[in-house]
Amino acid sequence: MGSFIASKEEDYSKWYLDIVQEAKLVDYSPVKGCMIIMPYGYAIWERIRSILDNKFKETGHENAYFPLLIPYEFLEREQEHVEGFSPELAVVTTAGGEKLSEPLVIRPTSETIIWNMYSKWIKSYRDLPIKINQWANIVRWEKRTRPFLRTTEFLWQEGHTAHETVEEAESETLFILNLYKKFVEDYLAIPVFHGKKSEKEKFAGAVCTYTIEALMQDKKALQAGTSHYLGLNFAKAFDVKFQNKKGEMEYVSATSWGVSTRLIGALIMVHSDNKGLILPPKIAPIELIVVPIFKRDDEVNKRILEYATTILNRLKKEKFRVEIDKDTKNSPGFRFSSAELKGIPIRIEIGSNDILMDCVTIARRDKDKNSKYQVAVRELSSRVRNELESMQSDLFNKALEFRNLNTKEIFGAEKDSYNTFKTYINEHLGFVLSSWCGSEVCEESIKNDTKATIRCIPEDFKNKPLDNLTCIYCNTEAKHLVLFAKSY
Amino acid sequence: MGSFIASKEEDYSKWYLDIVQEAKLVDYSPVKGCMIIMPYGYAIWERIRSILDNKFKETGHENAYFPLLIPYEFLEREQEHVEGFSPELAVVTTAGGEKLSEPLVIRPTSETIIWNMYSKWIKSYRDLPIKINQWANIVRWEKRTRPFLRTTEFLWQEGHTAHETVEEAESETLFILNLYKKFVEDYLAIPVFHGKKSEKEKFAGAVCTYTIEALMQDKKALQAGTSHYLGLNFAKAFDVKFQNKKGEMEYVSATSWGVSTRLIGALIMVHSDNKGLILPPKIAPIELIVVPIFKRDDEVNKRILEYATTILNRLKKEKFRVEIDKDTKNSPGFRFSSAELKGIPIRIEIGSNDILMDCVTIARRDKDKNSKYQVAVRELSSRVRNELESMQSDLFNKALEFRNLNTKEIFGAEKDSYNTFKTYINEHLGFVLSSWCGSEVCEESIKNDTKATIRCIPEDFKNKPLDNLTCIYCNTEAKHLVLFAKSY
Repeated sequence: MGSFIASKEEDYSKWYLDIVQEAKLVDYSPVKGCMIIMPYGYAIWERIRSILDNKFKETGHENAYFPLLIPYEFLEREQEHVEGFSPELAVVTTAGGEKLSEPLVIRPTSETIIWNMYSKWIKSYRDLPIKINQWANIVRWEKRTRPFLRTTEFLWQEGHTAHETVEEAESETLFILNLYKKFVEDYLAIPVFHGKKSEKEKFAGAVCTYTIEALMQDKKALQAGTSHYLGLNFAKAFDVKFQNKKGEMEYVSATSWGVSTRLIGALIMVHSDNKGLILPPKIAPIELIVVPIFKRDDEVNKRILEYATTILNRLKKEKFRVEIDKDTKNSPGFRFSSAELKGIPIRIEIGSNDILMDCVTIARRDKDKNSKYQVAVRELSSRVRNELESMQSDLFNKALEFRNLNTKEIFGAEKDSYNTFKTYINEHLGFVLSSWCGSEVCEESIKNDTKATIRCIPEDFKNKPLDNLTCIYCNTEAKHLVLFAKSY
Repeated sequence: MGSFIASKEEDYSKWYLDIVQEAKLVDYSPVKGCMIIMPYGYAIWERIRSILDNKFKETGHENAYFPLLIPYEFLEREQEHVEGFSPELAVVTTAGGEKLSEPLVIRPTSETIIWNMYSKWIKSYRDLPIKINQWANIVRWEKRTRPFLRTTEFLWQEGHTAHETVEEAESETLFILNLYKKFVEDYLAIPVFHGKKSEKEKFAGAVCTYTIEALMQDKKALQAGTSHYLGLNFAKAFDVKFQNKKGEMEYVSATSWGVSTRLIGALIMVHSDNKGLILPPKIAPIELIVVPIFKRDDEVNKRILEYATTILNRLKKEKFRVEIDKDTKNSPGFRFSSAELKGIPIRIEIGSNDILMDCVTIARRDKDKNSKYQVAVRELSSRVRNELESMQSDLFNKALEFRNLNTKEIFGAEKDSYNTFKTYINEHLGFVLSSWCGSEVCEESIKNDTKATIRCIPEDFKNKPLDNLTCIYCNTEAKHLVLFAKSY
């Protein structure tokens, strides 16, 4: 099992591709760039979806479903939007045996079709706010694809809200940004920087885009979710006005926001190792696996299986997501490796010695094999509960420590600082917190020199004083502290 | 509210369209034949999905996700399949700014893309069975569409299973048929006939198709779900062989099965009335609505709202799906009508008199307004629980009685029976149980004469003796008892 996985130290990219296939998360489809999400991969997505779905609903959002196909003309109504998306469109030209008079595109995102409907639904302030979310498939024709990280078709949720005031829309944008940050940190155990994108990096059609940015183990950044403040752009494009409390007609303010199956890619790249997946307990489809250690004696094995099944049922009753491995053909070593490959947080081994002592042996996926230990059955569920909790926080802390170790401050005020910046970002990678004048020319020049982009203007360093700092590139007065990184 | 809905006695078709719009279940989209499923309609679909999803998982099925786009060439590999589906395909010919060398179709169903993958995944009997389900969107370019019942894009689940033996696949087909029947009867409160389709009516590519058939209030039948035994057809088309226990290579046996958002159409058409939706409690997104009856005195209203909120919270705590209507602008009559339009099973009215007596007044959606009555608060949750249960079974029994009243036996042995059959099916509609020789010519002739089709060879009448019966059309020896009906 583990032996089919490349070493991440030697070939991180192959290691990633090996894991997604060997752990049976995805398979490649005959349609270039599209993936099949296999049952185990889909089970992770179902966990993500059900947790987020609850959070959206608890905070006043409702689900709905809008059509897959959008008239091309709708996209053209918002200039930046159509420029951003038209190179990536899949276009339906024939349907029901006839050529269509107007081409339809498969949604690359749904702002246009949704705002077309909002123009019908919104007449008065009484119709606001509208806070709709949709779980859907999306198609963007990408040149270079990689499972979960960038695929031609992917699954996501997209929220689309409409508000009376600019302030309310801005506050919704930030509310969702924080909801995403908390979800990714608390459940996926991935620390993220959150902040605003630069003008150049924002969503096509947004006034501004907020993002959460994570650091992978190869020290490249990954955009894990975005929340856009759309201002009046789509209201103007689709002429969506409402009568306000004073009886005047006003344009409606908008937001949109989304996370996708890409989160599964982040999950793998932040925590996993050369033995396979490591899944944070809160997101793992299976938290515990019971592995009875069989002998060459059928009668003994029957006893062992009975004992293991009793323990399984007890854990099920306590609402753990638990499974049993009844494989009698393969060696314990092989079976342990299988459970490790799948990233199951805790393995519960049950051998005949354990039974004699009314014990089981528990092994945590994120610790080395010498750290496994025996636990009395009567203490099992409380011990397991504690271990799951510590594993969740240990994974987060480990990722946070790694991220912090690889976040370097290099400011424009220092002597020869741009050379230091370039050397660091090329040789070491990671995040570089730097000072920037705000000009797109400097941003573009840095990208050309280093392939690094501005990931965001981070909220974390908002209160850090800018005095005397100059732009890392042009040395004029700095306007923002920004995070640079090479990214996926 | 109710006044915008046409009378179902006068114009059943308009009544249906009025309900789906007035109750805000769907709206029409700018793309012909595609619907927007609005939050309340989507909430019904979420109930259907979560209940079925649990049932699939409890019985060993797993979810996965396969690509939206399928190479056209895949469909061509199964002759009947491509003939059946190609008139309805939406075709992507351009993507990423370039003309595709091979056109891709938007899935009209996923047998071909899934069996293409199964050819990679299945090598040995050890890989079997595979029991995968997918929740997805589907596009079929339909000429005449109607919300939920027949739309260009719809949502569904499609199960695709692979088995070692023909027997195992046949048994899976029937297992799912029965699961569908039980779900539709127990949750949607819709009685169904279940049985096999005729050759002419089966799924394109199946060996045989089983169906569940319901009767709407206009006495037209509706196919509510299908389960197909595919035999070796797709295994042969995609060359999917496995090594059996004896070491020989064999083709894999297959099933597929699905239900869609069409079920919501059935739900509306079976139970609802001229005031709007009537939803069976088990499927209703909201089971109970608390309606405080406000006065013209703010202080009094504050007390009433407090009291109502206490009751709301108590019911929430007991896991009822309950909401409160805090509208102070509109009259109680208007607010009652709104709740009726939405089909909420039980309305809990709270007026100042109720509060004085520590009571509330409960009204069931399926009973007339004189039947509402006061209940002491301490008895509320048990009374409500009982009422929800009786309403669920009352709705089923009412629909069953209607279905049975409108299921007529007219057999070929009787004198002048084909004339009787034609008159009945044209003037009365409903199901007609009749005798049939099995010939497609007779089936076709009956369809031409009456527009009625064979809905199924019902399991319910399997043990009824056929002796001396002749075909209703040609009067030769009858081979099957079949149900005819005009249908959606």
